[in-house]
Amino acid sequence: MISIDLNSDLGESFGAYTIGNDEEVLKYISSANIACGFHAGDPNVMMKTVRLACSLGVGIGAHPGFPDLAGFGRRNMQLSPEEIFNLVVYQVGAIQGAAKAIDAKVRHVKPHGALYNMASVNRDIAGAVARAVRAVDPQLVLFGLAGSELIQAGEEMGLKVAREVFADRTYQPDGTLTPRSQQNAVIQDADEAVLRVLKMVKEGKVTAVNGQDIFIQADTICVHGDEEKALEFVKKLRTALLAEKIEIRSFGVGSHD
Amino acid sequence: MISIDLNSDLGESFGAYTIGNDEEVLKYISSANIACGFHAGDPNVMMKTVRLACSLGVGIGAHPGFPDLAGFGRRNMQLSPEEIFNLVVYQVGAIQGAAKAIDAKVRHVKPHGALYNMASVNRDIAGAVARAVRAVDPQLVLFGLAGSELIQAGEEMGLKVAREVFADRTYQPDGTLTPRSQQNAVIQDADEAVLRVLKMVKEGKVTAVNGQDIFIQADTICVHGDEEKALEFVKKLRTALLAEKIEIRSFGVGSHD
Amino acid sequence: MISIDLNSDLGESFGAYTIGNDEEVLKYISSANIACGFHAGDPNVMMKTVRLACSLGVGIGAHPGFPDLAGFGRRNMQLSPEEIFNLVVYQVGAIQGAAKAIDAKVRHVKPHGALYNMASVNRDIAGAVARAVRAVDPQLVLFGLAGSELIQAGEEMGLKVAREVFADRTYQPDGTLTPRSQQNAVIQDADEAVLRVLKMVKEGKVTAVNGQDIFIQADTICVHGDEEKALEFVKKLRTALLAEKIEIRSFGVGSHD
Amino acid sequence: MISIDLNSDLGESFGAYTIGNDEEVLKYISSANIACGFHAGDPNVMMKTVRLACSLGVGIGAHPGFPDLAGFGRRNMQLSPEEIFNLVVYQVGAIQGAAKAIDAKVRHVKPHGALYNMASVNRDIAGAVARAVRAVDPQLVLFGLAGSELIQAGEEMGLKVAREVFADRTYQPDGTLTPRSQQNAVIQDADEAVLRVLKMVKEGKVTAVNGQDIFIQADTICVHGDEEKALEFVKKLRTALLAEKIEIRSFGVGSHD
Repeated sequence: MISIDLNSDLGESFGAYTIGNDEEVLKYISSANIACGFHAGDPNVMMKTVRLACSLGVGIGAHPGFPDLAGFGRRNMQLSPEEIFNLVVYQVGAIQGAAKAIDAKVRHVKPHGALYNMASVNRDIAGAVARAVRAVDPQLVLFGLAGSELIQAGEEMGLKVAREVFADRTYQPDGTLTPRSQQNAVIQDADEAVLRVLKMVKEGKVTAVNGQDIFIQADTICVHGDEEKALEFVKKLRTALLAEKIEIRSFGVGSHD
Repeated sequence: MISIDLNSDLGESFGAYTIGNDEEVLKYISSANIACGFHAGDPNVMMKTVRLACSLGVGIGAHPGFPDLAGFGRRNMQLSPEEIFNLVVYQVGAIQGAAKAIDAKVRHVKPHGALYNMASVNRDIAGAVARAVRAVDPQLVLFGLAGSELIQAGEEMGLKVAREVFADRTYQPDGTLTPRSQQNAVIQDADEAVLRVLKMVKEGKVTAVNGQDIFIQADTICVHGDEEKALEFVKKLRTALLAEKIEIRSFGVGSHD
Repeated sequence: MISIDLNSDLGESFGAYTIGNDEEVLKYISSANIACGFHAGDPNVMMKTVRLACSLGVGIGAHPGFPDLAGFGRRNMQLSPEEIFNLVVYQVGAIQGAAKAIDAKVRHVKPHGALYNMASVNRDIAGAVARAVRAVDPQLVLFGLAGSELIQAGEEMGLKVAREVFADRTYQPDGTLTPRSQQNAVIQDADEAVLRVLKMVKEGKVTAVNGQDIFIQADTICVHGDEEKALEFVKKLRTALLAEKIEIRSFGVGSHD
Repeated sequence: MISIDLNSDLGESFGAYTIGNDEEVLKYISSANIACGFHAGDPNVMMKTVRLACSLGVGIGAHPGFPDLAGFGRRNMQLSPEEIFNLVVYQVGAIQGAAKAIDAKVRHVKPHGALYNMASVNRDIAGAVARAVRAVDPQLVLFGLAGSELIQAGEEMGLKVAREVFADRTYQPDGTLTPRSQQNAVIQDADEAVLRVLKMVKEGKVTAVNGQDIFIQADTICVHGDEEKALEFVKKLRTALLAEKIEIRSFGVGSHD
C-alpha cells in the first residue's frame, strides 16, 4: 500500500500570543513539526502541543530555528556551523525532554524558515544540522527539501531522510523550486495542487514549468493550517489521498517500523 | 570510605559575555551544575561546558532557572506550578541533548537562584520541580537545600536526592540557614569554614549560632570559583577533605552505583 | 462641557504575532497606551501604532512594562526602585523617539500589567515610576488607578495625573476595586456598566458593593478592543457618552490645554 | 587649533555580565558610543554609563545594533530598510530618555557591529540609518566609516557627519580598509599606529599598503579599552596628540558649536 506523510509546522504560539490553529490541523496530518522556543514556541506551548500531537497519534518532530523570535526565524543569520550544530542539539534535546515527560518519542527533525532554506543550499550548514541530529539520536528522521544539500548531508551520515515536496509550488526542469520572485512560482488552484500531489505520490513525477515531466521523490508534503483556506486545502488533499487508497502516515512509522 | 560531593554553578557565560572561571574550578569539584540558557548560558556555552566537565570526570547536572537573563535568574517571578514544570522539563531536556551529543549522561538537577529559593520553601513549586525531574528521567538526582521542601518533594516522589549544605553560611538551631540580612549569616574565615565542613561530613553535625550542635545531613557542598578568593577556598577545602581520607565524588556515582 | 478620556492598551503585537484589533478600537478612544517592547510590542509595531494613533488624533501614551515578553508583563517581578526607574525611562524614551520621528508628541504614561498593579500599592515602586516620568518629561500625564499609591506619588512630584476607573469592575466602600477572586468583582451586563460610567463621569459617584454611593474621581476609563464583545461595549459606551453631551477627549488636551 | 575626536564603544555590559573597562577608558576619550539594549546593554547599564560619560564631559552617543544579544550584534541579519529605520529610532529614543533624565543630551549616533558594516556598503541600509537619525533629531552627528555609504547618506540628508578612521588598520590605495582576512590588515606596533594617526590628523593623509600616500579625512578615531593593551594604546595616543597640540574633543562640540 502506498503511503505519504503530511507534515505541518505547529506549536508556534508564544506566551500570550497565538499563531495557528493547531488543534484543528492536527486532525488531518501525520507529522507535527513543533517549534522549540527559538524562533517561536515556549516551554508551555511545546508541552501542550506535544501532548496534543501524541494524543492524536501524530508523529512528534522538532522544528528548530534561529534565535530570532522578533523575526520568526525567517531572517538569515550568519552563524558558524558549530553554532548551528549546538543550537540544533539544544532545541532537539528540549523537545525530547517534553516528549519523555509524557512517555512519547520525538521521531523527526525539520529545520525552520531561514535555517531550512540555508541548509538546503549550503553544504556546511546542511552538514552541521545533520551531524547534530545524528549526535542526539541517530534514529531521528531528517526532513529536508527534496534534492537539497540537507537531504544529501543526512544520507551521507546514514540518517533516514524524508524528502519534502510542496503542493502549491511549481518546479523547474532541474527539480528545484521556482523562486517566489517569479510569477508562476505558486499554484493558486486547489484542485490543480491536489492533482499534482497525487501524481507525485503515485507516479513519482511532477510536471515542470516547461511542461516536461520530471522525477521527484515525495516522502512528505508540507501543509499549513493557520488560515481557513489552507485548512480547507488540507481536508481536500486528505480526502483525495484516501480516495486513491493512499495511506497518510508518519514517515518511517508503520508496517516496517 | 566516607565521600562527599562538591558542586559548583558553571556554564553561566552568554554569547560574548564571560562569567566564572569554569576551566579552573572544574579541576576541584565532582558535580557541575550547568546553566541551561534561561537565566544564563547558551547552546554554545552549554556544549563547551558539558564537554569540559565530561573530559574531567565531573558529574554533569542541569541548572535550570527562571527565564530572566537580565536578572540572572535571581529575581522572584510568579509562575504557576505548571509553568515551572514545563520550564524545568525544557531545560533538563536541552542539556540532555548536549550530553547525548557526546555520549555522556546528565546525572543531577539543581534549580538556580530564585527558583532554588522558592522551591526551598514553597511546597507547590517544590512539587513542580520534582515532578518535572522525575518525568524526564527518574534516575536523575535532585539537589536541594538540606531540610527544604524541595528535598521533601523529591523523596516523596521516589527520587534520589542530594542535601546541599553551605560551607560559608551559619545555621539556626532548627537547621535553617541564618538569613543574609543578619550579621552572623556568613562565615568569613576560610579555615573555620573548612573545619565546619569536615564536621558536617564526618559527624553529621554543625554548630548552630547559639552554640548548640545540631544534626545535618550533608550530601553535597556548594562552592564557587568565579573569584580568586573563592577558588582558593575550594583548593583548601579539597586538600583538607583528602587529608581526612574523605573521597570527593559525584553524589550517587561510585562503588555502589 | 464635561469630558472624559477613553484609553486602551495598544501596539501589543510582536514580530509575526498579532494581538488586538488596534485599527478598529482607535476609532473610538482618545488615549492610546502603546507597548514599548518589554512586555509586548517591537520597534516596527510601535512605529506603526504611533503613526496610526496620530493620524486619528488619539493621544499617544507610553505603556511601559516588565521585561517579560513570555509572561506579557503580567507576572510580578522583584525589581529595585532604581531598576524600575531605569526601565521606565528607557521605554518612555523609546516611544518618544518614535513620536519625534513623525513630529508627534507622547502625552501620557500608563504602566502595564504587574508593574501597574505593584505601583498601585507599593509606595517605593510608585515613586520610582513617577520620578522616571518626571525625569524624562515633566509635561507627561501619569495614568494610574484612582486612589492608588501611583496617583499619590505623581501628585507629590507635581505631575499632572489621570485617575483611571474601570467600567466593568465593582468597588468596595473604601473605593478600592473588588478583588477578582470575589464573585461580584466583574460586571457582566454591558448596559449596567455604561450606566455606572455615566454616573461616575456626571456625578463623581459609584455605587459600592454594599449599595452605598461613594465618591470617585474618573479622569480616564480603560476599555479593551481585542474581542468582538469588548469592541461592542466601547461603541455602546461611546454612543451613550456622546448622547449625554460628554466629550471624549485625551486627558489634559482641549480648550484648557 | 587642530582637534580630533576619540570615540569608544561603551555601556556593553548586561545584567550580571560585565564587558569593558568603561570607567577607565572614559578618562581618555571625547565621545562615548553607548549600547542601547539590543546587541548589548540594558536600562541600568545605559543610565549608569550616560551618567558617567556626562560627569566626565565625554560626548554621549547612541550605539544602536541588531536585536542579537547572543551574537553581540556582530552577525549579519537580513532586515528591511524599514525595520532598520524603526530599530534605530527606537534605540536612539531610548538613550535620549536616559540623557534627558539627567538633563544631558545625546550628541551622536554610531551604528554597531554588523549594522555598521552593512551600512558602510549598502546604500539602502545606509539610507535607513541616516533617515532614522534625522527623523529623531537632525542635530545628531552621524558617525560612519570614512568613505562609506553611510557617510554619503548622512551628507545627502543634510546631517553633520563624522568620518571614522582606525588607528590599527591598514588602507588600500582606494581608501578602503584592508580586509581582516589579509595578513597585513592590522598594525601590531603601537608606535607605528600612533604615527599613522598623527599623519592622518595633521596632514589628512595615510600611507596605503602599496606605499602610496592617499588623502583621508579623519574626524574621529575609534579606540578600545576592554583589554590592558588597548588601554595602554589609548593613553599613548592621547599623550602623543596632546604633545602635538592637537585637542581631543567631541566632534562638533567646542568653539564653533
